[in-house]
Amino acid sequence: MRSPPADVLDAQCPSRAVLNHVTSKWGVLVLIALSERMHRFSELRRTVGGVSEKMLAQTLATLEQDGFVLRTAYPEVPPRVEYRLTPMGREVASRIEGLVDWIEHNLARVQRAQA
Amino acid sequence: MRSPPADVLDAQCPSRAVLNHVTSKWGVLVLIALSERMHRFSELRRTVGGVSEKMLAQTLATLEQDGFVLRTAYPEVPPRVEYRLTPMGREVASRIEGLVDWIEHNLARVQRAQA
Repeated sequence: MRSPPADVLDAQCPSRAVLNHVTSKWGVLVLIALSERMHRFSELRRTVGGVSEKMLAQTLATLEQDGFVLRTAYPEVPPRVEYRLTPMGREVASRIEGLVDWIEHNLARVQRAQA
Repeated sequence: MRSPPADVLDAQCPSRAVLNHVTSKWGVLVLIALSERMHRFSELRRTVGGVSEKMLAQTLATLEQDGFVLRTAYPEVPPRVEYRLTPMGREVASRIEGLVDWIEHNLARVQRAQA
């Protein structure tokens, strides 16, 4: 039995929105990419296969707003902007990694089930 | 460094679709609900706050197709249909639980960051 202080199964609980942010199609992948190392925007866009500029910017803004991602803009010409995980972002990203690692290592089993 | 046999960051890798299924808005919540115990369709609809009948049916069909959920229809009147996790579904659901537990227990920290 889980008896948590919050409950994602309750549509009104604010934890539901946080879950949606970190499990969004691009949110998951941005957290995985940033868990390796900090990235510049253009690097991140190349690393996260298939993401558009607009969706990446939107995803990063949401994760920054939740306190998972730190955006640092250096006053250079041309401007340099770096994204990295905060300590809290590293905690949540490690849980995402647990899930992603399972999928990557068990893909063949899933494909056998799909067949 | 991760050097997995599959790579969700590659848009062409079949692991990406599996990740999308288990991290879909309702996929996550159905896996969490079923990790507690098996459910009938109507129970599941009440447990997963906010899900529509159509989205729940679609989510269950996708998770069944991937081999995560087992659907059992008993030849009774009225018909009884039960959904439970397969052994593979329990493995993936335990990773989802790790993520959800973190969010539920750290919601206050996230809310402080958002403020």
